[in-house]
Amino acid sequence: MNEFDLIRKIDQLTADSSDVKIGIGDDAAVVPNFKNKDVITTVDTLCEGIHFKRSTLRLYDIGYKALAVNLSDIAAMGGKPRYYLVSLAISSDWEQDELLDIYRGMNDLANHYNVILIGGDSVTSKSGLTISITVLGEIETDHSLLRSSAREGDVAFVSGILGESRAGLEILLEQDFNERNRLTMAHQRPEPQVILGQLLKDSGYRVSLNDISDGLSSEVWELAEASHVSFCLKEDKIPISKEAEKLFGKQKALDFALNGGEDFQLVGTVEKSKWPDIEAAAKEKGLSLTAIGTVEGGSPSVFMRRQNGERIPLKQGGYRHQ
Amino acid sequence: MNEFDLIRKIDQLTADSSDVKIGIGDDAAVVPNFKNKDVITTVDTLCEGIHFKRSTLRLYDIGYKALAVNLSDIAAMGGKPRYYLVSLAISSDWEQDELLDIYRGMNDLANHYNVILIGGDSVTSKSGLTISITVLGEIETDHSLLRSSAREGDVAFVSGILGESRAGLEILLEQDFNERNRLTMAHQRPEPQVILGQLLKDSGYRVSLNDISDGLSSEVWELAEASHVSFCLKEDKIPISKEAEKLFGKQKALDFALNGGEDFQLVGTVEKSKWPDIEAAAKEKGLSLTAIGTVEGGSPSVFMRRQNGERIPLKQGGYRHQ
Repeated sequence: MNEFDLIRKIDQLTADSSDVKIGIGDDAAVVPNFKNKDVITTVDTLCEGIHFKRSTLRLYDIGYKALAVNLSDIAAMGGKPRYYLVSLAISSDWEQDELLDIYRGMNDLANHYNVILIGGDSVTSKSGLTISITVLGEIETDHSLLRSSAREGDVAFVSGILGESRAGLEILLEQDFNERNRLTMAHQRPEPQVILGQLLKDSGYRVSLNDISDGLSSEVWELAEASHVSFCLKEDKIPISKEAEKLFGKQKALDFALNGGEDFQLVGTVEKSKWPDIEAAAKEKGLSLTAIGTVEGGSPSVFMRRQNGERIPLKQGGYRHQ
Repeated sequence: MNEFDLIRKIDQLTADSSDVKIGIGDDAAVVPNFKNKDVITTVDTLCEGIHFKRSTLRLYDIGYKALAVNLSDIAAMGGKPRYYLVSLAISSDWEQDELLDIYRGMNDLANHYNVILIGGDSVTSKSGLTISITVLGEIETDHSLLRSSAREGDVAFVSGILGESRAGLEILLEQDFNERNRLTMAHQRPEPQVILGQLLKDSGYRVSLNDISDGLSSEVWELAEASHVSFCLKEDKIPISKEAEKLFGKQKALDFALNGGEDFQLVGTVEKSKWPDIEAAAKEKGLSLTAIGTVEGGSPSVFMRRQNGERIPLKQGGYRHQ
């Protein structure tokens, strides 16, 4: 495989932009200053066989999802993603056309959010494909939404429906790789909550925020530990998936929501008096937010109030890649 | 291995800095705006077994070199590196203490250039270690030094001595892993030319620049192609290594310089009338620059004038990782 040929073809995929001074093809990329804004950046790596398998993700979806994971991190800060860099470590059994399919998936998602590919590299690996994506974004000075901003009395909320990605994975692994439905699409093309993150930031309220890459329980634990508070979630408020419930039963659907992972929805908190505002603003944009519990004092911990009234501790478990 | 425990230990290694708003531990890192400066960014990935082997690099050196490769790219733009992110994909045979040694190597080089670790991730790989580093830097608006700036009549120059890294690798592979001399150190701890890059940028002259990650011939070809010019290098001006010559003979030492790779010196061009200024400014800072030839017109190509007067074409070969 010829790296220069690959670069040329990737370059053709990518739209020219006046927002880029030096893009692909020099030692480093150069972009204009983010006028008066803070710079947000994140990197995530996905490994073949661990984070994705060619038996559950099409090539296009591998690219789409690799970028989505990173955009989700920017969303969880309330930031606006602007640019991305891609580093591929590729084993010899990958063909150039296959790699271009991966870039097409990234490129389509990137175009949707006006995020521009500015650089990266591709190297040879001993085995499998490893994709590292770095995203640069911007946010109004000191307006980042942090995990450490939750306070006693806050309303805890989540976006969207939880557990669908895991339910989709089960279908792809156990049943039919060619199935395309709401659940499998949730696994293969998760929608990063970029618009919602910015809406929450624009509110100007004190909002704590985290994205749900592992399960809900694990992500709420991160908020609890960063903010030194405890959470009590209500089991019957957690937005589990009707489709997953139909296929796997209610208990499994709840388990997928709590411990499934890869939903890339957002979980956060806001002062109780501001919750109706936030809820209405999201609704107006067609974005779904659900209040799932409250923030309490005490040392970091997470509880769930079951429908029978029982209050049980939620373990930090969640879904972890090996 | 526990990722949170590793993050905590890495965090302890890293100096606190008022230049970082949100560092390791949230969804993304946040740094202040680079006031009125352009933003430079680059990513490079090193794979175990391809770019480094534990039989030729100590753990500390793996970290040092992985960051050096990236700083070299920023240097080749004339930029000032400010922040970095590290993404590790780790197989199960790596121990936490070993990874911390890698971070120590990065950290020491980073401290030397006041570059701050602000984030990253670590994930599980199926086999081997893959290190992806992203560096963010800054440069005065529109002052980046590009590969495309060479013009007919320019003086072509290189920094330092070439071919030592490759000579060092030969010693480490064939002779003695424990040898520590000028050549093996050039391979294990290459010095990114960050100060020189900024000096060239500060000159305000039209300077084309590239870093020597592959061999000199390959990097000069990149300048030729980006600038649509040809180069004629003088064999007897190429700064080959006296130590390498002593051990491997003159022909091998020249071959290491032209095709060896991983020297991470800089190669570039400047208008002939400005060359004495540039040379003197570098000398004043204790940095070595050597004029090695001239830029000519014509279609992109690279020639070398041999000591016997013969003019031979230099192939684009250079050293390529598999």
